[in-house]
Amino acid sequence: MLKVAVLRWGHRYRDQRLTTHVALTARALGASGFILSDVEDEKIKQAIGKVTGQWGGAFSFQMGVPWKHAVKEWKKRGGIVVHLTAYGENIQTSAVMNRIRATGRDVLVVVGSQKVPNEFFSEEVSDFNVAVGNQPHSECSSLAVFLDRLFEGQELQKEFEEARVRIVPRVRGKKVIKSSSVQSRN
Amino acid sequence: MLKVAVLRWGHRYRDQRLTTHVALTARALGASGFILSDVEDEKIKQAIGKVTGQWGGAFSFQMGVPWKHAVKEWKKRGGIVVHLTAYGENIQTSAVMNRIRATGRDVLVVVGSQKVPNEFFSEEVSDFNVAVGNQPHSECSSLAVFLDRLFEGQELQKEFEEARVRIVPRVRGKKVIKSSSVQSRN
Repeated sequence: MLKVAVLRWGHRYRDQRLTTHVALTARALGASGFILSDVEDEKIKQAIGKVTGQWGGAFSFQMGVPWKHAVKEWKKRGGIVVHLTAYGENIQTSAVMNRIRATGRDVLVVVGSQKVPNEFFSEEVSDFNVAVGNQPHSECSSLAVFLDRLFEGQELQKEFEEARVRIVPRVRGKKVIKSSSVQSRN
Repeated sequence: MLKVAVLRWGHRYRDQRLTTHVALTARALGASGFILSDVEDEKIKQAIGKVTGQWGGAFSFQMGVPWKHAVKEWKKRGGIVVHLTAYGENIQTSAVMNRIRATGRDVLVVVGSQKVPNEFFSEEVSDFNVAVGNQPHSECSSLAVFLDRLFEGQELQKEFEEARVRIVPRVRGKKVIKSSSVQSRN
């Protein structure tokens, strides 16, 4: 099974919620780990740790790693790097997804911001530059659509092991199972 | 052609960037308008106006409208309301998408937060409660995946009319066309 990790570059402390959402998206949509590169932010680490503790599944979290180091290590272990950018090949109009899948290799998805270093586009860093549409929007949304397409939707039915909380999907209201007890609202 | 608008409930001023990303996602992934309900935030209005002015397309922006009023108006005009929530029917494992499409009606997508009023789940408000997976993640990501699936990817190849800036997708580097002149970097 393909292993996918997400590297987030360009985190700003005043945008903690946004980076938290990127990390939660990575986890919920099938990635196995998250790297907050170059900076450390305890609040984000705690937020993600809390979610993983409650909602289950194995999800690694690293922070403070220089992005170059993380990319180098990933490639050394045989993985490829996909840089999500509005400037890249359009995920809908090009065959880039097929080419990524055809490599059969683990994927490090790099998400940045408008101000990523030009190096991100170079062959030394990115194997693919992929655009979830060529309009400006959000690294969070780009990541979500990319993962949903990469895993062909299968990620949304994955069971998270050792969950202490689990939602039972329903037409109306909320149904949550906690450990062995069932609780329901609405 | 199906018309889709997005209503964002529960905006907090300290999370401006997140709400901006939700609005930009709505625009980039094919919605025709955005409603920031119940509150006003000039910064978000300006940010979205700037993007629409530069990158083109028709995209309406409203703010301060009470959510109940917006929902009522939408329904009066024959549209349906889809509430995105981790508690709803799983977009992958249920047939909810087909049922939404089968209505053939315009869609108001309501995105909130963990603390939405219970009323959102009621028949008076939501015609469908849809979960982009039943794990906690992000309203931004949920919206992106929902729109991508609703429009079956077609939204990502849409031309935005009267754009002053346009990206030419490419394998490496950045290529941008401004009005009638071509500029390239990398």
